Amino acid sequence: MDITQFVELSIGRWRSQRSAHHLAFSHFEAVQSVIDIIALSPDAPAVIALCKSYNIDRTQIVSPFQMTWEGQSDWDEENAEIKGSSILVPVPDPNVPHRGKLLRDQGYAETVAAAGDYHLTEDGTFVLLTTYDRAAAEEKIWFANPNLRFRVSFIKTSGGSGVVTASFASEIRSLSSNK
Amino acid sequence: MDITQFVELSIGRWRSQRSAHHLAFSHFEAVQSVIDIIALSPDAPAVIALCKSYNIDRTQIVSPFQMTWEGQSDWDEENAEIKGSSILVPVPDPNVPHRGKLLRDQGYAETVAAAGDYHLTEDGTFVLLTTYDRAAAEEKIWFANPNLRFRVSFIKTSGGSGVVTASFASEIRSLSSNK
Repeated sequence: MDITQFVELSIGRWRSQRSAHHLAFSHFEAVQSVIDIIALSPDAPAVIALCKSYNIDRTQIVSPFQMTWEGQSDWDEENAEIKGSSILVPVPDPNVPHRGKLLRDQGYAETVAAAGDYHLTEDGTFVLLTTYDRAAAEEKIWFANPNLRFRVSFIKTSGGSGVVTASFASEIRSLSSNK
Repeated sequence: MDITQFVELSIGRWRSQRSAHHLAFSHFEAVQSVIDIIALSPDAPAVIALCKSYNIDRTQIVSPFQMTWEGQSDWDEENAEIKGSSILVPVPDPNVPHRGKLLRDQGYAETVAAAGDYHLTEDGTFVLLTTYDRAAAEEKIWFANPNLRFRVSFIKTSGGSGVVTASFASEIRSLSSNK
């Protein structure tokens, strides 16, 4: 599996059921959301702008896409709404095809732009490592079948090996176009 | 990493925080438990008996161990207690050292004896596939560091590719010997 195939498999609407484990105080957080992943043209103005901000030549990129999510967490009593959107642009390493950079205009752990390092393992798992100012995130995504994918992610404090949050999402492809 | 090292890393008491996703009806189940993993002697009567029941010669086995768990689920309103114990015996494939069989006297998904097929991936993930009469289970276990391990498991209906339950556990080594 290469990054183009991986992105292709991911395109669509997903119903996501995510559990976050806040390890220091054994807290369970439950999040339900709808995730839309759509392919973007390499010529889309937002893609061009993102490439420019990272000084990446547009001939190097493949399969840019946009991810939009909207959901609810049970973290506090008000069932906090979670909502966001991010543009993601893979830049494969010309020498090591299953590795590369993933540019994005907004990270998960912080709300600033962040580029991560990805690789695809032999068994088709996408692994993404992103380093932020004060934290690092590791994410693994794999498909159980074309309509079911799983996502495990960890947030670590930077400099330390301490994992502070671990989360797991089961994502089922939504076959209707309505929420 | 070979199976002996993997079992060695696992020995101890673990505080486990597990989320199960029941996919058909988007239910979140939260389970908190204490898991004790202790090394057994290859000469322990229970190990000898288990080898006999599978017709496995005792010279083929490595690192037998016992796993005991005790915890609570929020599945129903009474906070159901979950409790059990299982003896596990790895039988490495003499030709493919990172693969083998894992014998056990009691499975997770059903309460009958079941042998699974394991392998260790290049990045140190232990993968176990177990086929039952009416279901199949896939489990992945890996260490973030020596005191933190993660466990992802799926229960599938047998014959179909349908995953019915996906679960994720964060397990922190308990440094005291008391619960």
